[in-house]
Amino acid sequence: MIKINSAEILCVGTELLLGDIVNTDAAFISRRLAALGINQYFQSTVGDNPERLSEALRLALDRSDLVIMTGGLGPTYDDLTKETAARLMRRELKLHEESLARIHARLDRRGIEMTENNKKQAYLPEGAVVFKNNYGTAPGMAIEDEERGKIAILLPGPPRECEPMFEEEVEPYLKKFSSHILYSRNIHIFGMGESKVEDTLRDIMTTSLNPTVAPYAKSGEVLLRVTAGGSSEDECKILCDEMIEKIKLTPVGEFIYGIDIGTLEDALVSELTAKGLKIASAESCTGGYVAKRITNVSGSSGVLDGSIVTYANEVKERFVNVSRETLTKFGAVSHETAIEMARGVRELFGSDIGVSTTGIAGPTGGTPEKPVGTVFVGISTNKYEDVRELHVGNGLADREYVRYISASNAIEMALRAAKKLS
Amino acid sequence: MIKINSAEILCVGTELLLGDIVNTDAAFISRRLAALGINQYFQSTVGDNPERLSEALRLALDRSDLVIMTGGLGPTYDDLTKETAARLMRRELKLHEESLARIHARLDRRGIEMTENNKKQAYLPEGAVVFKNNYGTAPGMAIEDEERGKIAILLPGPPRECEPMFEEEVEPYLKKFSSHILYSRNIHIFGMGESKVEDTLRDIMTTSLNPTVAPYAKSGEVLLRVTAGGSSEDECKILCDEMIEKIKLTPVGEFIYGIDIGTLEDALVSELTAKGLKIASAESCTGGYVAKRITNVSGSSGVLDGSIVTYANEVKERFVNVSRETLTKFGAVSHETAIEMARGVRELFGSDIGVSTTGIAGPTGGTPEKPVGTVFVGISTNKYEDVRELHVGNGLADREYVRYISASNAIEMALRAAKKLS
Repeated sequence: MIKINSAEILCVGTELLLGDIVNTDAAFISRRLAALGINQYFQSTVGDNPERLSEALRLALDRSDLVIMTGGLGPTYDDLTKETAARLMRRELKLHEESLARIHARLDRRGIEMTENNKKQAYLPEGAVVFKNNYGTAPGMAIEDEERGKIAILLPGPPRECEPMFEEEVEPYLKKFSSHILYSRNIHIFGMGESKVEDTLRDIMTTSLNPTVAPYAKSGEVLLRVTAGGSSEDECKILCDEMIEKIKLTPVGEFIYGIDIGTLEDALVSELTAKGLKIASAESCTGGYVAKRITNVSGSSGVLDGSIVTYANEVKERFVNVSRETLTKFGAVSHETAIEMARGVRELFGSDIGVSTTGIAGPTGGTPEKPVGTVFVGISTNKYEDVRELHVGNGLADREYVRYISASNAIEMALRAAKKLS
Repeated sequence: MIKINSAEILCVGTELLLGDIVNTDAAFISRRLAALGINQYFQSTVGDNPERLSEALRLALDRSDLVIMTGGLGPTYDDLTKETAARLMRRELKLHEESLARIHARLDRRGIEMTENNKKQAYLPEGAVVFKNNYGTAPGMAIEDEERGKIAILLPGPPRECEPMFEEEVEPYLKKFSSHILYSRNIHIFGMGESKVEDTLRDIMTTSLNPTVAPYAKSGEVLLRVTAGGSSEDECKILCDEMIEKIKLTPVGEFIYGIDIGTLEDALVSELTAKGLKIASAESCTGGYVAKRITNVSGSSGVLDGSIVTYANEVKERFVNVSRETLTKFGAVSHETAIEMARGVRELFGSDIGVSTTGIAGPTGGTPEKPVGTVFVGISTNKYEDVRELHVGNGLADREYVRYISASNAIEMALRAAKKLS
């Protein structure tokens, strides 16, 4: 059996070289390879050009055991990945009847006639392992060269096809080549910066070899990945769980909002659902971003009573009952307005939790006293009210970032509130 | 002077190989290189490993005239890009006083003490062209090898530093190497698919060599890039303008929502602002996405009266005046409910335009009659009302995509309405 010591990704598509699309396939596959414990040392991208594609693939097969290619499996004349890989690995293309039938069925369901071009997609290198495509016409494949100990995997480029094919077909295939298991758990942290987390956990991170603990920053949050290696999943799980308990006892503990929970909004919807609580938001500077993120989560309809965007002062007064006096005395961007908005929207919708945002998202509107990034996030329940004052990016952050971080804080405060309510 | 016939991008960072971040730098730089008329044939990524980085850079300098590297300019021991490039191109690192002073000033402003590590960032290859970093401590640089006719440009990895440095410093630098100008304009199309656009414009696209016309699909929209080459910008502009007028006269014309306008929401806010019109949204399945996207645009506070998320039927009744009869007879996901929501929210906020969405975003909630992706988008003005029925992705699209496309349709219908109103 071929031994996979190293892998690399080779993406094919002129649209990548033109910057028309961002290469999310490479990031997705990299994450999955890391989780499988397969080392990846190189990534490359070439356009739809047969010579350069050949050159890149030859180099990749020289320096790595496994080459995962994406793109260039489409039906048109400039889709050449399969032809190039087959030629380099000395395989004939043969009609693969099962794939042809699948393409036929797929097109039939959509009432589209089969063309010669589509038929071309069913010609596969002799002896290839075929990966079914449930989201498009191009099948994926693995070409194994036992003699050289090399494998080339070819996947369609569109993420909607590439990602599920990788999860459903490629991962089970690759697992056959390894007996060592890697198992990871993710600790989600909000409210403590990456360098502070690192400082606090330095001893643990530098001394623990199995599991390893590694921090990753992502838009205002920190993810700690705990990864254990071993011969069985159970063994790895125990190692990870012990480490998680250890970290919970450090000062980082109070900023942990969940384990393997996905996003802040996933954690919020799941907490609200579990407790049968409902929430409403009144949004000024986030303009619907809080509601949009909560409703990203399937099942959020059961927990979101409603949301109202209250940009103008008169809307704040009329709908969420912010007093004119507060607006005149403290301004729309203030601690007091945030509280009244949160209380007002909670009462308006009769919710358990009301959350609000008001601030200056920029790029204009900042003043010396309240520069861009000044945001007040309010929370109101029947037990307590609270406001968090943010200064996102010291006046340097862009509009999207200010709004994103503000919405994150609103969602995190709501999560804390939900945890306190019974 | 060095002649740049080909370029490639080499990104450095183990976090890219682990898939912890998506490589947006490569896409950004690619777009900019294309706009500058510089051909790019390869992209690669390596980790923070000196041997592999050396190997990759040597290869890149062999096959391309210009190599743009990102990442690995940070202050820590595993940031090795500068050291590796300097060694390969036989330059000594010398303290660059101006960069040291800039780093000092930057840290001072934030009350951070200068460390030896930060000082390391001010050591630059002798004779390098230095690019100022206004958003971080690491300066960028270009190392020119006149003898071999090669240039290596080194940029910081974080997009917040890389992108402005490229625009403000690298582009003016690169323009010195070219006398031929490329000039592009973008035609934004919504409502006609990419293949239909291609079919309609096939003759134009295949026969016109200057300007060229190329279509790009992006999330439910099509972008047509018209690119002219010449010796002056004026000359190119005229060629582009003539082509745009020609395309406007084809059946594609009625689906053009703007030229070089950015996004649908940019076009909407600019149209509303120009006409002094105001808008409000009532959102069910999009849950705030329409408002969120409108408020992405700076200046939207002047045109968005408000928005309300009306998930529950009782919220639809109470706030935007959808009649119980309509809800009972036709259901919440219906033509009739969409119209009443749009009308209701327009009246609630006293706006010129009301827009609404109601549908099934999935992954659950679909039925044989109304599968996932069934969405009604309503529009109401004092002149007319309209509803668009969508079937996003034939029941196969994911929640985010259904919501995104629904919001796009709402924004586009509002834009059409705004164009009709005076």
